Amino acid sequence: MCENDIGKSIYNLAVELFPICRSITGNGVRETLKIIRHEVSDLNISEVASGTRCFDWTIPPEWNIKEAYLINPDGEKIVDFSKNNLHVMGYSEPVNKTIPLEELQEHLYSLPDMPDAIPYVTSYYERRWGFCITHQLRENLQKGNYKIYIDSTLEPGQLTYGEIVIPGKSKKEIFLSTYICHPSLANNEISGPVVTTYLAKWLLGLRQREYTYRIVLVPETIGSIAYLSEKYEHLKNNVVAGFCITSIGDDNAYSYVESKYGDTVSDRIARHVLNHIAPNYKSYPFVQGGGDERQYCSPGIDLPLVTVMRSKHYEYPEYHTSKDDLDFISPAGLYGGYNVLKYCLLCLEHNEVLQNTFLCQPHLSKYGLYPTVSIKREKADFRIIKNLLSYTDGNNDLLSIAEILGIKMWDLFAIVDQLKGKELLEGTS
Amino acid sequence: MCENDIGKSIYNLAVELFPICRSITGNGVRETLKIIRHEVSDLNISEVASGTRCFDWTIPPEWNIKEAYLINPDGEKIVDFSKNNLHVMGYSEPVNKTIPLEELQEHLYSLPDMPDAIPYVTSYYERRWGFCITHQLRENLQKGNYKIYIDSTLEPGQLTYGEIVIPGKSKKEIFLSTYICHPSLANNEISGPVVTTYLAKWLLGLRQREYTYRIVLVPETIGSIAYLSEKYEHLKNNVVAGFCITSIGDDNAYSYVESKYGDTVSDRIARHVLNHIAPNYKSYPFVQGGGDERQYCSPGIDLPLVTVMRSKHYEYPEYHTSKDDLDFISPAGLYGGYNVLKYCLLCLEHNEVLQNTFLCQPHLSKYGLYPTVSIKREKADFRIIKNLLSYTDGNNDLLSIAEILGIKMWDLFAIVDQLKGKELLEGTS
Amino acid sequence: MCENDIGKSIYNLAVELFPICRSITGNGVRETLKIIRHEVSDLNISEVASGTRCFDWTIPPEWNIKEAYLINPDGEKIVDFSKNNLHVMGYSEPVNKTIPLEELQEHLYSLPDMPDAIPYVTSYYERRWGFCITHQLRENLQKGNYKIYIDSTLEPGQLTYGEIVIPGKSKKEIFLSTYICHPSLANNEISGPVVTTYLAKWLLGLRQREYTYRIVLVPETIGSIAYLSEKYEHLKNNVVAGFCITSIGDDNAYSYVESKYGDTVSDRIARHVLNHIAPNYKSYPFVQGGGDERQYCSPGIDLPLVTVMRSKHYEYPEYHTSKDDLDFISPAGLYGGYNVLKYCLLCLEHNEVLQNTFLCQPHLSKYGLYPTVSIKREKADFRIIKNLLSYTDGNNDLLSIAEILGIKMWDLFAIVDQLKGKELLEGTS
Repeated sequence: MCENDIGKSIYNLAVELFPICRSITGNGVRETLKIIRHEVSDLNISEVASGTRCFDWTIPPEWNIKEAYLINPDGEKIVDFSKNNLHVMGYSEPVNKTIPLEELQEHLYSLPDMPDAIPYVTSYYERRWGFCITHQLRENLQKGNYKIYIDSTLEPGQLTYGEIVIPGKSKKEIFLSTYICHPSLANNEISGPVVTTYLAKWLLGLRQREYTYRIVLVPETIGSIAYLSEKYEHLKNNVVAGFCITSIGDDNAYSYVESKYGDTVSDRIARHVLNHIAPNYKSYPFVQGGGDERQYCSPGIDLPLVTVMRSKHYEYPEYHTSKDDLDFISPAGLYGGYNVLKYCLLCLEHNEVLQNTFLCQPHLSKYGLYPTVSIKREKADFRIIKNLLSYTDGNNDLLSIAEILGIKMWDLFAIVDQLKGKELLEGTS
Repeated sequence: MCENDIGKSIYNLAVELFPICRSITGNGVRETLKIIRHEVSDLNISEVASGTRCFDWTIPPEWNIKEAYLINPDGEKIVDFSKNNLHVMGYSEPVNKTIPLEELQEHLYSLPDMPDAIPYVTSYYERRWGFCITHQLRENLQKGNYKIYIDSTLEPGQLTYGEIVIPGKSKKEIFLSTYICHPSLANNEISGPVVTTYLAKWLLGLRQREYTYRIVLVPETIGSIAYLSEKYEHLKNNVVAGFCITSIGDDNAYSYVESKYGDTVSDRIARHVLNHIAPNYKSYPFVQGGGDERQYCSPGIDLPLVTVMRSKHYEYPEYHTSKDDLDFISPAGLYGGYNVLKYCLLCLEHNEVLQNTFLCQPHLSKYGLYPTVSIKREKADFRIIKNLLSYTDGNNDLLSIAEILGIKMWDLFAIVDQLKGKELLEGTS
Repeated sequence: MCENDIGKSIYNLAVELFPICRSITGNGVRETLKIIRHEVSDLNISEVASGTRCFDWTIPPEWNIKEAYLINPDGEKIVDFSKNNLHVMGYSEPVNKTIPLEELQEHLYSLPDMPDAIPYVTSYYERRWGFCITHQLRENLQKGNYKIYIDSTLEPGQLTYGEIVIPGKSKKEIFLSTYICHPSLANNEISGPVVTTYLAKWLLGLRQREYTYRIVLVPETIGSIAYLSEKYEHLKNNVVAGFCITSIGDDNAYSYVESKYGDTVSDRIARHVLNHIAPNYKSYPFVQGGGDERQYCSPGIDLPLVTVMRSKHYEYPEYHTSKDDLDFISPAGLYGGYNVLKYCLLCLEHNEVLQNTFLCQPHLSKYGLYPTVSIKREKADFRIIKNLLSYTDGNNDLLSIAEILGIKMWDLFAIVDQLKGKELLEGTS
């Protein structure tokens, strides 16, 4: 599939998933995961019951919603959940009554500085109800009584998440995590699951993999906490690198959020790939992050995760509003994000510590790896081979060597294969 | 006491102490320490006898002086010790004779480039006598015979120093050292003892202290060496941080002299406090220092001391001249220095390594530490709590965390108390 | 001998050695080493037989050449080895025939972008023959048959190298290596052997040496590999620092090529000396090197070598052409290189870890090392002594101390001697 086609396919999946009303629990999450399972049949769907204790947290009741609207004193349906699922505050309790405007105001959410945008608002852990509307509409509400109707349920149920485990030669794992809890929002967040889905398809299509890949699609915060509370010991023992995949579909510059100390192999790989593919990317310290990397890197968990994004949450005005829609993302934007992450994984796959089999530099021209005529200017390719062989001393992984040589790591893959083929080089586990 | 009042009180003490003729030994030191003991009754005054060996040094004879003057050929008393005690070279031997101008010249000290200033000159370890005068006066000396009179004594006696030990919860000590050997000089050096006196008063007024504080008021060089020769093993075992307090009373930018390797907790604290309170401070490497930190950081002693000053010795023209008088320092200047050092000590008191009690991030909204409605923009305060809890993994002291978060360490004190109160966080000893 | 005289003497030796036709084996190498042995009688000449296996390499047949020329269709001898030994490709096999221009072209080497320069070309490990000519000449070759004559031999013989071992107080060694395989080329490369010869003479003239010096004059690549295959275990155990000496005779800015990781004492010394003597030098990472440091620093060998040069190979147009002749180097250029390397060795000789004999700072004025009158401005010299004594704590070598003090290391030599003489300081082995 060519670049253009992959981008379009990812975008089409986003179009299909975008309208579903997701939250941290409920049928929207289930429906989303089932559609993704059409793409990746290895997806395993699990549930955790409401009330389950996960570290310091408790799985809340399951929330589902059928219908919701607001009727003004003139009898006009001025807000309708069926037109935009952002209109209802996430986890709104059911309500069906008529109240005066003054009382309604306490339940309305709007953005004065973005008067034509509907904000995305939730209240997962305290019972409330609310409507999210444009500030334009709010400014024009007339005095009088409003009929309020929210047909939702908050009942004991399940938190649902998806998991794909793709085995590799090693039991050591690369961990990918994305969110499935946002309603109709495009960059943050349907871009994450769709790009992740296509990364899973690409990984499954590889002839072989060095690492095992663990890919989770979870509701933000409570989902990752639930997952960690089940699996953190396994993850701590096995995960060698990982990425949070979020906000990865628009056309703006890439963003990179460091791991907690900025010193993991995931950081090194992300910086290397971005430096060579998108050098104008923006780098953020961990304290400016704010997704599930907080959970994955929390004290005692400490997984080596970074986040590679396009426009970062909080940093673009459309964030968490109805403006973050399918026009804000694009096939090219999604493909770009997919491609950067694919190169990160490719680099991880090839990032072994290498060791010369010979003492001293081998006689390269014997192997056809160096010209037999010495000319005035050494060709760059031959210089790369000699430089590579200077640093394959058992102390450096291939990423370090690429950094020392100042070249793309993937430009060394074929050379390493060639030198291994001639038994001049070997990997050390 | 408000800021203004503290500054004035410190200045008033400086006014009282300024006129006394101090040297490395003698009654001036004793008188100075007795006045300070009126402020801090815990001050303990000790003496070391002349001739006592201290490492490679020997305590010199005690020097005292009653009167000294110079009478010109016309019979006019043109230099009088009673008018300015800088006029006599420190440790001048007694002399009473009449000599021609040519011979006198060899005993005169003046500053051609500061013609109206009297220089401060000493000769502690070689017997000499001398007068320090303005260069203006020197240029106008007429030919003829001058009567020289110095009524001083150089006799076996004592070197006198003061020590205040203020106990805390830990036997580990914070060490503060200041000089009491300068005659009528204001920034360098009566500012040091008076600011130190008020820091001692503040420390004594605290409800509790984490650390024990050891505060010494010593003659420069020989005093700190004498003190070290008695106590260095105890100090090496117990001192965790410390400050030389000198030149801390004028209104110019702050100066910071690194410890020998610039890597102690004292360095980190001093830089943090100055970066947040006085970011235009000047930083000097240890090799540009020149006070008692040389002794305290000498090979085999190696205490973790830095110096926080205002105008640094050698760096301002008034240094070691009669121009460094009570007009060169000010209540505001002294208060500023006191305040910076107080914040350094406050930060040290709070600088513990912190550890989450829970695995993973706690459910903050349960504790009222996070809003229950999720809105578009996270409030900075909540972000600080989440960021703090990411780094309280038992590897970081609070200072490191403040540096990572890019905020004032003291902005975290109340948050840490709150999280400890909710048993979400605990200190590790 | 004054600076001017040394430069002239080095240059004169270059003039004597320049015309000899050297290669990686053969009589030119033997003749060169014999001339150098006239200067340094300690030079030991060794040989390794053709066919000897050295790591992954095999010593090639010995190559010698008596005569070679090219006669054009008009019977004119248009190329003559006796006029410039660059005209024949190094290791050309014998040939004696007449061939048409078209066939000849495949054996001609010229530089289109330097039309009046003869390139330097070799083919050590694949049998070939070739002529190197100016591009001007090549462009004017007429159609027709050319008589080709190369009277060379490629027969089992020897690879010849020289070695000078100059004993010192320690068995630990400083290693110097230079090349003797280039025909008539001046900066790269007769400058290397002649400067090295004069460094050997200087070392032999020293009253005593801390270190043993091992100086080798080897053919590039195969020579150093042959040497390493015999001696690498000894070298790994004993060599503490070293320099490749090459391209050290022209008048342009100095160049410095880092060791493999840029962190050896050789790196630190080279940077220190160049920073103080020639601060506009150019610094290159190891990957931009390309001489025998590749062999000496190859995995498993890992000797601590750097290269200090003037114009670096590849970086100047004259490199490996007939333009790199005796006009390209100069007595001043050679002397400069000699002097920088001499200072590097001097600094290594003095670079011991120092330790105070006293606890605390000594009473310097007792020893005449500090003035007895304290004046307003401390003299820089006294400050140096006090600063030096702050860092002689057994953790720093003298180079580190010079770097901390920001002064030339050699400005400390006399002070260290003085302090040792007064038993205030001692070296630690």
